[in-house]
Amino acid sequence: MEKAEMRPNKKVVLKDYVTGFVEESNMEVVATDTVQLKVPEGSTAVLLKNLYLSCDPHMRAQMTKNDKRVAMHNFLPGSVISGFGVGKVLDSGHPDFKVGEHVWGVAGWEEYSLITAPESLFKIKYTDVPLSYYTGILGMPGLTAYVGFHEICSPKKGEYVFVSAASGAVGQLVGQFAKLMGCYVVGSTSSDEKIDIYYENVGGSMLDAVLLNMREHGRIAVCGMISQVNLEKPEGVHNLIFLIAKRIEMKGFNVIDHFHRYPQYVETIIPYIRDKKIAYLEDIAEGLDSAPAALAGLFAARNIGKQLVAVADE
Amino acid sequence: MEKAEMRPNKKVVLKDYVTGFVEESNMEVVATDTVQLKVPEGSTAVLLKNLYLSCDPHMRAQMTKNDKRVAMHNFLPGSVISGFGVGKVLDSGHPDFKVGEHVWGVAGWEEYSLITAPESLFKIKYTDVPLSYYTGILGMPGLTAYVGFHEICSPKKGEYVFVSAASGAVGQLVGQFAKLMGCYVVGSTSSDEKIDIYYENVGGSMLDAVLLNMREHGRIAVCGMISQVNLEKPEGVHNLIFLIAKRIEMKGFNVIDHFHRYPQYVETIIPYIRDKKIAYLEDIAEGLDSAPAALAGLFAARNIGKQLVAVADE
Repeated sequence: MEKAEMRPNKKVVLKDYVTGFVEESNMEVVATDTVQLKVPEGSTAVLLKNLYLSCDPHMRAQMTKNDKRVAMHNFLPGSVISGFGVGKVLDSGHPDFKVGEHVWGVAGWEEYSLITAPESLFKIKYTDVPLSYYTGILGMPGLTAYVGFHEICSPKKGEYVFVSAASGAVGQLVGQFAKLMGCYVVGSTSSDEKIDIYYENVGGSMLDAVLLNMREHGRIAVCGMISQVNLEKPEGVHNLIFLIAKRIEMKGFNVIDHFHRYPQYVETIIPYIRDKKIAYLEDIAEGLDSAPAALAGLFAARNIGKQLVAVADE
Repeated sequence: MEKAEMRPNKKVVLKDYVTGFVEESNMEVVATDTVQLKVPEGSTAVLLKNLYLSCDPHMRAQMTKNDKRVAMHNFLPGSVISGFGVGKVLDSGHPDFKVGEHVWGVAGWEEYSLITAPESLFKIKYTDVPLSYYTGILGMPGLTAYVGFHEICSPKKGEYVFVSAASGAVGQLVGQFAKLMGCYVVGSTSSDEKIDIYYENVGGSMLDAVLLNMREHGRIAVCGMISQVNLEKPEGVHNLIFLIAKRIEMKGFNVIDHFHRYPQYVETIIPYIRDKKIAYLEDIAEGLDSAPAALAGLFAARNIGKQLVAVADE
């Protein structure tokens, strides 16, 4: 049996469970591990070269010890953290994945990842758009914006839509989806403008302010509450009684329940990207060494647009 | 033209706008007014003799100055307060209402009420059950419990249901409706029991506790928040972030949007009452003089079962 090539495999490791705001110093970049550039004999695993890693809000809760608010597994101190990313198949024991293909899905924050359950990966069909887009508009955040707006909010033409964190990965898309279907996008709740739909990314006092401005029979899609995820005790929301007088529907959702909609979403959105009918903004940090600061910056609102990390060229 | 008989008309008047908990002393029973026992010539009004008055939580918000949380009009200091009640038609200028018929709907807290828009009244079809039931199980609270549970919660057989304020007018019915359709009714959230459906009558820290115990894809019908309606600044709710991880749907509603369902509801529920398949508990205060204390007692949780006031015999 041929001896497989071994390579160094730089990784971002969680140093300890995080309380309060996540800091760059909560993570460490270690360069001592190596990886074999072949999948184990007889396995159905896939070996990825990671090209882009996505910095997403859900990663904060994964850093807390036994956090029950998290839909994905918790990270372990001393181990590599993980998240959504884009990679290229270097080796494959799985009939559905061929060497040289591009995929997106959950991978380690490292140069090379061995994916033992590759069924969870999405194959990338269109490569005429930037591959980094598959961490955002063509990946999990894009689908989140799409199903959260179109399915959870049940929008109607002419309705008023307010999106919080409107420069983030999801928020920047919701506003554009709303305009494309003929809704009015409201820029700020400090105005007297009344709102039919609120796409909630922030939580806390923002939600309190919006509840005052919602219209009767309004709908709130609860996608995220980024203002709350770093707090030991979340802020109180005081205006929930308006849910009754205004007959408001407030619905939490997680995009992982909607992944079956992804192929349809891509076919819908690719023409808009190609025709430049949708603008999409990225904030790209270069190299794995910059990854901890990029992730911490997400919670300090340092990013403009979708925050991601470019790990390697092809 | 025949001169109409004049009668004294005792009333419950709001003394001043209320802040904090409503007290008996916020109201005054005045016996100086008189009423003509005929509707004005040529009008389509209806003159009611009030038999029962209902003490309901929504009346608290109507006592606050310019309260935006209220779906009905605000009460005015110096004027008679109003609420749901049961009455008998003494005179009628409306072709749909005949002298001697019984109705329920919104009337003044007084001995006789002139109803100028009688289209909003419901005619009472079944009089073999206590007429007082039309302030509760056969009136607004009954329909509230029914549509709130069956429509807002979308219950499925075998699901776990928790109801707060379960001895109140609405809560005592929701639990029984849930059992009738094969759900499990959970008595307390202090247990480790997980809940699919929460019928919310209380709000505040109760809601926070329940959010921790909800199951994934749980549904919360927001019917009332009685713990909050007397507070100048409502308590904060801290656990809303669980809406996301647990994909919870939380929906405020107001029974006035569902009044078209009332005839169907009565036909459904009357056999259960006659066959004693539903137990229904009332707390009846005697006479208009006891009305202010009865209403204040509702917010001090002094009532067991549906609180109402018996004003007069037929």
